[in-house]
Amino acid sequence: MEKTKSNKALTVLKTDAKKIRQELFGQFDELCLMQCPIVEEIMDTQMLVFSREVDFAKRCDLISKETALMLINDLSLEIEAFYQEITKKQTQQKG
Amino acid sequence: MEKTKSNKALTVLKTDAKKIRQELFGQFDELCLMQCPIVEEIMDTQMLVFSREVDFAKRCDLISKETALMLINDLSLEIEAFYQEITKKQTQQKG
Repeated sequence: MEKTKSNKALTVLKTDAKKIRQELFGQFDELCLMQCPIVEEIMDTQMLVFSREVDFAKRCDLISKETALMLINDLSLEIEAFYQEITKKQTQQKG
Repeated sequence: MEKTKSNKALTVLKTDAKKIRQELFGQFDELCLMQCPIVEEIMDTQMLVFSREVDFAKRCDLISKETALMLINDLSLEIEAFYQEITKKQTQQKG
């Protein structure tokens, strides 16, 4: 049944998104994020690869265009919010 | 039929590999390759994304482990051979 391959693809994508979240929100503590620019580069690469995986799944008709957009937007917004919080704390500390 | 999703995934991967080949062997002329290190960085990123697409397809049971290995090895070997040819020409020109 075609549905199983699509369901499997969506599960794999959600797992990959979860790994990126865990890495950012868990592994990198705020101090490290504030001081080492390499973290942002790692996250950019992770997002690039994740978005291309999502795009690949969409091109293979495994997920819809809407699901693809949702997967990428949700994760980007969370990462963006996380960075804004870090920047706010940095400015408060310097204040 | 599950086969169609797998066939579609393999076709998409082969198309992506072809795009990378066309970009390297067609778009970047040898002179540019010899002089601008950014080209190698672009190709590294392309290969990273392609290998993660292949890995994703394998994790979704769309392609076998053997097909995944073949797709990545074939392209890496071709890129490696191309760079060796460029380096050989560089040394001859300096000779």
